[in-house]
Amino acid sequence: MNVAIILGSQSDVPVMKGAAAVLNDFGIDYRFKVISAHRAPSLLVETVHALEAEGCEVIIAGAGLAAHLPGSIASHTTIPVIGVPLCTGTLGGIDALLSIVQMPQPIPVATVGINNAANAAYMACHILSLKYPSIKEKLTVLRAHLATSAGEVEL
Amino acid sequence: MNVAIILGSQSDVPVMKGAAAVLNDFGIDYRFKVISAHRAPSLLVETVHALEAEGCEVIIAGAGLAAHLPGSIASHTTIPVIGVPLCTGTLGGIDALLSIVQMPQPIPVATVGINNAANAAYMACHILSLKYPSIKEKLTVLRAHLATSAGEVEL
Amino acid sequence: MNVAIILGSQSDVPVMKGAAAVLNDFGIDYRFKVISAHRAPSLLVETVHALEAEGCEVIIAGAGLAAHLPGSIASHTTIPVIGVPLCTGTLGGIDALLSIVQMPQPIPVATVGINNAANAAYMACHILSLKYPSIKEKLTVLRAHLATSAGEVEL
Amino acid sequence: MNVAIILGSQSDVPVMKGAAAVLNDFGIDYRFKVISAHRAPSLLVETVHALEAEGCEVIIAGAGLAAHLPGSIASHTTIPVIGVPLCTGTLGGIDALLSIVQMPQPIPVATVGINNAANAAYMACHILSLKYPSIKEKLTVLRAHLATSAGEVEL
Amino acid sequence: MNVAIILGSQSDVPVMKGAAAVLNDFGIDYRFKVISAHRAPSLLVETVHALEAEGCEVIIAGAGLAAHLPGSIASHTTIPVIGVPLCTGTLGGIDALLSIVQMPQPIPVATVGINNAANAAYMACHILSLKYPSIKEKLTVLRAHLATSAGEVEL
Amino acid sequence: MNVAIILGSQSDVPVMKGAAAVLNDFGIDYRFKVISAHRAPSLLVETVHALEAEGCEVIIAGAGLAAHLPGSIASHTTIPVIGVPLCTGTLGGIDALLSIVQMPQPIPVATVGINNAANAAYMACHILSLKYPSIKEKLTVLRAHLATSAGEVEL
Amino acid sequence: MNVAIILGSQSDVPVMKGAAAVLNDFGIDYRFKVISAHRAPSLLVETVHALEAEGCEVIIAGAGLAAHLPGSIASHTTIPVIGVPLCTGTLGGIDALLSIVQMPQPIPVATVGINNAANAAYMACHILSLKYPSIKEKLTVLRAHLATSAGEVEL
Amino acid sequence: MNVAIILGSQSDVPVMKGAAAVLNDFGIDYRFKVISAHRAPSLLVETVHALEAEGCEVIIAGAGLAAHLPGSIASHTTIPVIGVPLCTGTLGGIDALLSIVQMPQPIPVATVGINNAANAAYMACHILSLKYPSIKEKLTVLRAHLATSAGEVEL
Repeated sequence: MNVAIILGSQSDVPVMKGAAAVLNDFGIDYRFKVISAHRAPSLLVETVHALEAEGCEVIIAGAGLAAHLPGSIASHTTIPVIGVPLCTGTLGGIDALLSIVQMPQPIPVATVGINNAANAAYMACHILSLKYPSIKEKLTVLRAHLATSAGEVEL
Repeated sequence: MNVAIILGSQSDVPVMKGAAAVLNDFGIDYRFKVISAHRAPSLLVETVHALEAEGCEVIIAGAGLAAHLPGSIASHTTIPVIGVPLCTGTLGGIDALLSIVQMPQPIPVATVGINNAANAAYMACHILSLKYPSIKEKLTVLRAHLATSAGEVEL
Repeated sequence: MNVAIILGSQSDVPVMKGAAAVLNDFGIDYRFKVISAHRAPSLLVETVHALEAEGCEVIIAGAGLAAHLPGSIASHTTIPVIGVPLCTGTLGGIDALLSIVQMPQPIPVATVGINNAANAAYMACHILSLKYPSIKEKLTVLRAHLATSAGEVEL
Repeated sequence: MNVAIILGSQSDVPVMKGAAAVLNDFGIDYRFKVISAHRAPSLLVETVHALEAEGCEVIIAGAGLAAHLPGSIASHTTIPVIGVPLCTGTLGGIDALLSIVQMPQPIPVATVGINNAANAAYMACHILSLKYPSIKEKLTVLRAHLATSAGEVEL
Repeated sequence: MNVAIILGSQSDVPVMKGAAAVLNDFGIDYRFKVISAHRAPSLLVETVHALEAEGCEVIIAGAGLAAHLPGSIASHTTIPVIGVPLCTGTLGGIDALLSIVQMPQPIPVATVGINNAANAAYMACHILSLKYPSIKEKLTVLRAHLATSAGEVEL
Repeated sequence: MNVAIILGSQSDVPVMKGAAAVLNDFGIDYRFKVISAHRAPSLLVETVHALEAEGCEVIIAGAGLAAHLPGSIASHTTIPVIGVPLCTGTLGGIDALLSIVQMPQPIPVATVGINNAANAAYMACHILSLKYPSIKEKLTVLRAHLATSAGEVEL
Repeated sequence: MNVAIILGSQSDVPVMKGAAAVLNDFGIDYRFKVISAHRAPSLLVETVHALEAEGCEVIIAGAGLAAHLPGSIASHTTIPVIGVPLCTGTLGGIDALLSIVQMPQPIPVATVGINNAANAAYMACHILSLKYPSIKEKLTVLRAHLATSAGEVEL
Repeated sequence: MNVAIILGSQSDVPVMKGAAAVLNDFGIDYRFKVISAHRAPSLLVETVHALEAEGCEVIIAGAGLAAHLPGSIASHTTIPVIGVPLCTGTLGGIDALLSIVQMPQPIPVATVGINNAANAAYMACHILSLKYPSIKEKLTVLRAHLATSAGEVEL
């Protein structure tokens, strides 16, 4: 299994590590790279082509503000792209959410919640589970564990 | 290949047909069902379990307003769920978008743009392309076709 | 009298304690449980059925983000459900507000203000006051007390 | 059983009739009055006091824009008040929603979705069902009917 | 000259003192009172009637959340009411702004910016200046002073 | 009595006529002019100076989009300025509302609701009523008339 | 003089013609092309490189939804890029506005108002006027003409 | 080369210094002045006329709240004006963004992102590069440097 996590900026590393942590838990290999869609657009295209050549199966891309990174990646590959809107700046991340989710046909980005890098990684697992029974199994175990997670709270 | 399209309400049929049309173009089988997460919650759970049993590989779910349908489905299965926020009511669909995309860990919904049912179907194709080379090929042909779609316009 | 307070996440306890405090003041019994609509959906359904069997009369449910908990509960019972949108994440709770209040017919959730758990408990009291004169009396005393709460302020 | 439906303006009648229709279906008596919180504030107070004297058990109040009607009513009675934000003007009703739901402690308004007068009436039924078994029974029948409302759609 | 500053809650005192400071600078007498439109509605009406009887000429009212205070006051008097939306809670004060400014005809509230209590007092001065030449003169002096307030900044 | 109504654009005439109609009802003289703050800024300043020289007592200014007109006028005079945010363009008038109401100290604009030109005129009447007892009387009559405006509606 | 107008989609032609009309009035040559940043990303890069080679001096780019077109162009050239957010879809164009204006350093897009293609062309003229005295002169004439554009309106 | 940076308020200096820093890096001369559009409107006009007389080629203007400064400047000159919406107050700067970007025809302001003063300076460089080859060269070097700015991150 082969996943890439791409970030628009060095400052996005702390939030996007949440995706890496989940992939680690599932034993999934990943690359973790910082490439800006706007500052290094040609490098981004080369990287996407290289990822496709290496057999990358899912790309997770996180960006804030006018967050074009996930959509730019999606425009250069048919690998599924999962977008993570980051709360950078002063608008709570609604700018990044709209910049990522409102993609035109036929270039979708599978968008998760603002700053929710972990959910991007879980979605990668769901996608990979179609092909890799071991991931399906781990997700099933996780869900079984969650299913009993409730409690009466002492106040 | 086996995809399900589930809608929260009969009134969502016209917009969600956009997903069906794309799947038809790719020759992908799908079920097209109307089940409300709130009006028929038990039936929804049964349906999701049946879909899993039948080997369904991707579920596309469209809903408006307090659009819980995609998330409710995702909470009952590890099949990847793609959510389509629908513009029902008076807020332009921002209610549905936030109700679908802001899912908690570890239950993601892969969200696409408001009313963009076609993009949900394209995302389903991207996911299926990991496993089915014929879909990968069709996506590649589509992209090659798009790549030249530009024109100088006569005014 | 029999009220339940249900929370989507352990992290919601501090805010939702505001509802418990009000119920304590009114001498109303309540259960206080953490059950996620998405992580433990079947357990939630069982719990709701158990509450109905035990004669629970009002359910207060608090959740943030894509806050489906109150609506999910409402879809499984005819007990009145009061929803508390919580400010979790980066959007000030508008995501939770819209996810709770914009429920489809005929499954309403009685929504109160963002993070206003106390008001959910007061609404529970108003509802119970229809049946229990002692609660009506306590509300009347409270209102009489408030009615004189004004003051010229020294600057 | 005794319910009142109060509207801020004559122009709100068409939407608020949706509440009346539901109450008719449940065989619940109601008053249907237009009184503006701002244009006739004293008359509103008198009316609320009269409703309390007549044993009114739930008040449904619908208003648009700076929608103070439900909160104003709630400030004068301990009868549960259900607020319906109406989409009047140019902001899709978000003004009315915030003006109704964001009430201060301890004066809650049980808010339903924008323009969703029917859901206000259903919430009234849920509240009344605590006291009136016949309403509980009708709600149970309604839910049982909904529970099977799903269908495979022919495209 | 006779101005009243009314606040919805004790917690609004720090921001609303900004209005008092400006009135002090202009040598304008004012009352400074905390009365909630929702907790003490009858007391509010009495107070407004008393203010009218005392010859109050402008009322400044500040409130947050579902900020009905300025509009409630306006509904009981023809004294001009200036509303100050306060940033209470999690939405940056947009809830209070819409609850104050979107008043129905013919009951306007003269609304100023969020938390901008000083501007409410300046607006009171502008209104009073129509009748009191001394205030007009002080405003003219203030504007003349401002007119030269610019500077090249050393970096 | 002497009021001016100033509009940013010829296309704002239909909505702003609502202010003229109210002033007509109160027998108040007014000028009705179209002057853009951006297209004719010097002419606007001259006009404002002329209005001050003529003894104008209230200025009503309506504008849409980046609605600077009311604030620009206010920056050149101490005559009270009432701003009407107009719904021009695609954002429901929230752009104009924020552009008008969020003025810095000490240059307030008394803002009314979106497209609510009539309320701007009523506010002008409230302000003028401080000085002109005949206006106070007419407002009192209007309020007395409104006070009884309620009705039981036949459905 | 050499300007390019680039559109993300054929459906954007009617609005973007507003830019062409202004350039025609100023006698400025322009190319008018439809190229999607997402559907034809490589073609877009080639086109931008060709424009730079041809001595293009300003690029106007209009797009809706997740409007990446202006930013994508800006990332490939140092020619000034003016972005026009288009109101496509259900959110009034706020999605396009944020997707265009919130660009990261050091890749700015000079953004104009939603659907305001004419203003993009005027901004192009302002930029070109630095280099071309004839454009400066035409702008000066236009402003002189506007400066007197005001009128007393007959009602 | 001759650029001016104008700020609406002394409190905007820290953010707007970001523009000065970029101009310093490019060796571009600039004036840095604080002049409020509302507090000192005549001084602003004089300053703009002086800048035009001195051959100023680009004006960068930053303001918050009802941010009229950039538009006011633009209404008095044909020098290109770049607007920086500042996050002052409680709404994250969306008030300033809309107040700046939604300018009417034919008076555009080239708007950059909220608080993004540096990008305003970069846009100034792009504009100046049309006339000054040395700036074009520096921008080209900057872009070449950025083009390789990517990295695999060690976690």
